[in-house]
Amino acid sequence: MRLTTVGVDADDTLWHHETVFRLTQDRLAELLSPFAAEADLRAHLAEVEARNLRFYGYGVKAFTLSMIETALAFAGDNSGAVIREILAAGREMLTHPIEPLPGVEATLRTLADRYRLVVITKGDLLDQERKVAASGLGELFSAVEIVSEKTADTYRRLFDRHGAGAARAAMIGNSLRSDILPALEAGAFAAHIPYHLTWAHEAAEAPIGQPRFAELPSICEVPAWLERCDPG
Amino acid sequence: MRLTTVGVDADDTLWHHETVFRLTQDRLAELLSPFAAEADLRAHLAEVEARNLRFYGYGVKAFTLSMIETALAFAGDNSGAVIREILAAGREMLTHPIEPLPGVEATLRTLADRYRLVVITKGDLLDQERKVAASGLGELFSAVEIVSEKTADTYRRLFDRHGAGAARAAMIGNSLRSDILPALEAGAFAAHIPYHLTWAHEAAEAPIGQPRFAELPSICEVPAWLERCDPG
Repeated sequence: MRLTTVGVDADDTLWHHETVFRLTQDRLAELLSPFAAEADLRAHLAEVEARNLRFYGYGVKAFTLSMIETALAFAGDNSGAVIREILAAGREMLTHPIEPLPGVEATLRTLADRYRLVVITKGDLLDQERKVAASGLGELFSAVEIVSEKTADTYRRLFDRHGAGAARAAMIGNSLRSDILPALEAGAFAAHIPYHLTWAHEAAEAPIGQPRFAELPSICEVPAWLERCDPG
Repeated sequence: MRLTTVGVDADDTLWHHETVFRLTQDRLAELLSPFAAEADLRAHLAEVEARNLRFYGYGVKAFTLSMIETALAFAGDNSGAVIREILAAGREMLTHPIEPLPGVEATLRTLADRYRLVVITKGDLLDQERKVAASGLGELFSAVEIVSEKTADTYRRLFDRHGAGAARAAMIGNSLRSDILPALEAGAFAAHIPYHLTWAHEAAEAPIGQPRFAELPSICEVPAWLERCDPG
């Protein structure tokens, strides 16, 4: 028996993402510097984002709305000019160029010959589709699945749809919480490829010792790891 | 040969939607009445929405961001209080109760015995999932497909995935532009069930005379119409 399907996270696995969010947060901190100390602002924004998750879900539009709410909290009736800048920053995030991280393209080309590759990502529907297209990697994937949440059920459903079930699939990504733990729970293999920044919401403990889990320093090591994965 | 799959649009086909948008627009018009004549405001909002479609796509978050942009255009630096209200109105749209339109539940129960039913809808990922769940209709569908755009290719792909292809599928919905014309182009049957309001963006001409097209006054007439659809 061999693996049929490899699920691949998108943001911070295939291309930079959190970096772009952090740059936008820096810009917000600067815009609101007359009204708020930077630490207070960042803490408040994180709180607003967490509270809004159940209404807005993930992605740039949700983040833009949470930035606006934060601006109102600090600058009150003087928020007009700042909010105009926030809207512009949000639109820039939705149009910024997408360049695959080092090693991504060559690795995916190797994998595409052997497995069915599926992008599995959260975020805004249109934006995630745009990024796959803009990355130039689209043709290497047999499907792009954009989901509202990554649970064990999500992985079961998608690995059934695009292969022979979770037991014969692997997931790779940078988020322990979203890419690794639920994929393992579904019965898949999972390789964590850390990105140098992690959104607080995505942090979790690594399942060290789980036989289907691996921590890899780079996506380049994925093909050799997959060769060693034995679904039995 | 018989049909295998029926695609069903969600907003304004299964439950009220445009009504909720219009009520929110009325509220915006009232909030901005010190700054803008109602007609100017509505025209400007429509323009902003159309321009933002390629960045934001469809859904409540996109609409909220476009309302904020419109408020800034008219109220400028005095927008703070209005934008706070807009954020609240957007969140209300994301949590308002969902009640199926008359005849929807009984019709879907009849159809679910004979066909694979699939929700095919645009909008925000999380919000559309919430509405299906809140409607109580979820168990009647074999899948919920939330897409960034409804093109002929979208229907081809989804009817392949959930049945025996577009030629043996039918689509029902209230939007000629999104539900009917591209489904017909893909080779499916399509029934238009008008809703009393149509978002300007979704308007199009009915393909009168197309043999796979029908215009039905109510969803209740869908089962009998489907019986007459002969894929050959």
